[in-house]
Amino acid sequence: MKKKVYDLLNKSKYFISFIYGLIILNVIVLIFESYEDYRTSFSNFFYYFEVVSVIIFTIEYILRLWSSDLDKKVKGSSFIKRIKFAISTFGLIDLVAILPFYLPLILTVDLRVIRILRLFRLLRIFKLGRYSKSLKTIAEVLRSTKSELAITGIVAFIFLVLSSTIMFYFEHEAQPDKFASIGHSFWWAVATLTTVGYGDVFPITTMGKFMSGIIAIIGIGFIALPTGIISSAFMERIQKIKKKNQVCKCPNCGTIINNKL
Amino acid sequence: MKKKVYDLLNKSKYFISFIYGLIILNVIVLIFESYEDYRTSFSNFFYYFEVVSVIIFTIEYILRLWSSDLDKKVKGSSFIKRIKFAISTFGLIDLVAILPFYLPLILTVDLRVIRILRLFRLLRIFKLGRYSKSLKTIAEVLRSTKSELAITGIVAFIFLVLSSTIMFYFEHEAQPDKFASIGHSFWWAVATLTTVGYGDVFPITTMGKFMSGIIAIIGIGFIALPTGIISSAFMERIQKIKKKNQVCKCPNCGTIINNKL
Amino acid sequence: MKKKVYDLLNKSKYFISFIYGLIILNVIVLIFESYEDYRTSFSNFFYYFEVVSVIIFTIEYILRLWSSDLDKKVKGSSFIKRIKFAISTFGLIDLVAILPFYLPLILTVDLRVIRILRLFRLLRIFKLGRYSKSLKTIAEVLRSTKSELAITGIVAFIFLVLSSTIMFYFEHEAQPDKFASIGHSFWWAVATLTTVGYGDVFPITTMGKFMSGIIAIIGIGFIALPTGIISSAFMERIQKIKKKNQVCKCPNCGTIINNKL
Amino acid sequence: MKKKVYDLLNKSKYFISFIYGLIILNVIVLIFESYEDYRTSFSNFFYYFEVVSVIIFTIEYILRLWSSDLDKKVKGSSFIKRIKFAISTFGLIDLVAILPFYLPLILTVDLRVIRILRLFRLLRIFKLGRYSKSLKTIAEVLRSTKSELAITGIVAFIFLVLSSTIMFYFEHEAQPDKFASIGHSFWWAVATLTTVGYGDVFPITTMGKFMSGIIAIIGIGFIALPTGIISSAFMERIQKIKKKNQVCKCPNCGTIINNKL
Repeated sequence: MKKKVYDLLNKSKYFISFIYGLIILNVIVLIFESYEDYRTSFSNFFYYFEVVSVIIFTIEYILRLWSSDLDKKVKGSSFIKRIKFAISTFGLIDLVAILPFYLPLILTVDLRVIRILRLFRLLRIFKLGRYSKSLKTIAEVLRSTKSELAITGIVAFIFLVLSSTIMFYFEHEAQPDKFASIGHSFWWAVATLTTVGYGDVFPITTMGKFMSGIIAIIGIGFIALPTGIISSAFMERIQKIKKKNQVCKCPNCGTIINNKL
Repeated sequence: MKKKVYDLLNKSKYFISFIYGLIILNVIVLIFESYEDYRTSFSNFFYYFEVVSVIIFTIEYILRLWSSDLDKKVKGSSFIKRIKFAISTFGLIDLVAILPFYLPLILTVDLRVIRILRLFRLLRIFKLGRYSKSLKTIAEVLRSTKSELAITGIVAFIFLVLSSTIMFYFEHEAQPDKFASIGHSFWWAVATLTTVGYGDVFPITTMGKFMSGIIAIIGIGFIALPTGIISSAFMERIQKIKKKNQVCKCPNCGTIINNKL
Repeated sequence: MKKKVYDLLNKSKYFISFIYGLIILNVIVLIFESYEDYRTSFSNFFYYFEVVSVIIFTIEYILRLWSSDLDKKVKGSSFIKRIKFAISTFGLIDLVAILPFYLPLILTVDLRVIRILRLFRLLRIFKLGRYSKSLKTIAEVLRSTKSELAITGIVAFIFLVLSSTIMFYFEHEAQPDKFASIGHSFWWAVATLTTVGYGDVFPITTMGKFMSGIIAIIGIGFIALPTGIISSAFMERIQKIKKKNQVCKCPNCGTIINNKL
Repeated sequence: MKKKVYDLLNKSKYFISFIYGLIILNVIVLIFESYEDYRTSFSNFFYYFEVVSVIIFTIEYILRLWSSDLDKKVKGSSFIKRIKFAISTFGLIDLVAILPFYLPLILTVDLRVIRILRLFRLLRIFKLGRYSKSLKTIAEVLRSTKSELAITGIVAFIFLVLSSTIMFYFEHEAQPDKFASIGHSFWWAVATLTTVGYGDVFPITTMGKFMSGIIAIIGIGFIALPTGIISSAFMERIQKIKKKNQVCKCPNCGTIINNKL
């Protein structure tokens, strides 16, 4: 019977569609809950929907945990296999998806924490990762560029700190509220170097504008590096799948020279 | 005689230039109509121009439909060929180009729908696709990157939903009008992650600014993926046309083998 | 003697440095002239500097025209060679550089035209193109990507027109001053699709914001295409110069197989 | 004993971690010092921390200078080797890191200079360059693209000057405070062409908006060139490390030839 459950969870198209739909519904309900009007009108419906969802997700989690020892891709005893499932990426996502509901029942928590826990319901969207090719692709790309993202991330951060400090020294006197500290200047640095430029903070002194110009022209390049790496890795991966093998066939001797680029 | 019509529609340079010019004129008139002054001064002229344009486009459509059975690239009986034309991309564009004029005459529609239908006149610009190499190139590029655009589009959308929800929770209390719901926060997410940053909405709490910074630095990369894919595919296509042949020389026989990538 | 003049103009390092410096000085003076204070204090100096510059540039132009028949890279009689010089890129730039001074003396022009002519003095900066490797590189890159820039430019323009019209229809009622016509909306389209987003114009209706989001996510890709083409062509050109030949040497038979990528 | 010192400075993991931590602490203290509250509460602590840091960095510098003649990678006599260390990149960074403290003691300087000198403490972050792979990678990338960055930098600058001048002539009358001179317009040009677009300065005349649109669409490409070069060089470097060997199989002898690009 356990095998039947395992097949249901991992191969049954009906079950997969059902869970897929329930996750999407969860996200939609989360969005609608943020509207004051809907919250008051449908509060009962939202509550029951949440209870039902959590019950279904909990049963799913328990069944997955129970049947995880049938997983042939993982090695070890039944107990080891269950532990491996529990700490696997998707095992943790499934757990985090249901914890926010149970935690307040186990521990006494104040109101702020309950609000944050309701935010955690959003992470249910990552349960889709089991079924969504898109999310798997992105996860792969991120995993393969880990070290480069780390390098460029550190450099971007150092540049942000440098820029914030320079602008603080030039603008602090003229705008003591907006550039109150290097921390406050950090907000200017992020908004400017990501080129979003809201317009709520900007230099007004001549030297500040001058430094800001230089910082922008140089810095936008550094902050854009992580983006460039993800885009580049993503497109290389797509092109690897699409690329034809290079083949030369010598018309004289008939030898085929395989030249894989 | 049908062949003469077919040749006129598809090969005659005079006819193509005429229709090209009429389409451009239509767009120019549409733009000028939006100016209050011009609308009042030239309202008669605009009306007659529209009637004449629609008549010409209708005659063109009927003639194309009638002569479409001479199209050698399409298979099937005359009737099948005409159906294939009617549901082809350009057949539909030609139909949509003239419908906005006829629809109010067939059905009774209220004022708002009439306004939207006038907007549909804008789609006449895509009739240029038959004659414009530029539009054909872009259409090809989009068709060839369909699946990658779908993947990155879904990921970008998920990221937008995540960002909106996170910012809603952090900024809702401080700015209940601007971050009134997750839907309202979506406007902030789009304006920020496309780096447009109008400045009408932005976080003012410290945690909100902090989360916003992280979201911006990571998210701008994800939102930029579709753009990168289109640019990359476009330039690959151009380079395929320009790329020199790869040459292998068989060391045995000395023959130079031309190898087109 | 003509040969001595020709060598002086095109090979003498002293002359080239002198003209280079005079052009830079011209640009610096043009910038300083825009400051009210400097204009009143130094008006005499600016006037004499302009007269002297024009005299020097005029003598240079006449000498180049005169000695252009010694140019071995151009074919034809002396007269033909001089015409070819006069209509060459640099010949025209040199002419445009001195015309703004002479034109008001030949024709009577009103004040507005005199102001525009003073702006034309800015074009003297392109006389640097003869000597500056940077400007030559960029000119080459632009020339080699002419047709692609045309294609993407047309597509970008069509997209701008489409966006402006759509936003006009959705926002005109709510913001009749900012979206007064499709022409006014064009300003919104340019500011948004280049992601500059000043914040002086933006949609305030819900449908307007929704359409604006979609337009931004798609359109930023199309508007970025010309930029991507210039960057890509520029870096290909640099890499062509740097790329090493791919060479395979068969260790057995000693044959070297040249494989140019 | 000198060898022990040399090994300590350059190979000892404890020493390296210690200095690494001290540099990070220095930066954190610099950031906290900018907050008014912390400055008043902890002024004594900040002062003593600065004195201790400078003493440690000074001892480090003296020890490095003394033991630099054991450096095998540098050629020359002991004296030459010490000079080479003193003018090497890291030697200069170490010196600049401690000078701001000593300079006011040697020369009498006014308050503004003391403030700028405190800003120089920020440069201590570059002492991390000895130990941080990230900073070394970026420095390498910048060094290898020196000439291309120079070319595109000059072109970007010329474009900025051109844009500022054009916008000055069109907007000066309408906005004499914001476009007061070409220098003032330069701020508009930088904010717009980097697409930051704060919204504090923008054209309001029709011709100004028109020129601004053209300038933006063209110019954003040129200003983005340096960024593209850094990103491209960075990713090429990463890919060189990752690239699979190109394999040719000699059709004669059947040997597989490993060809490292």
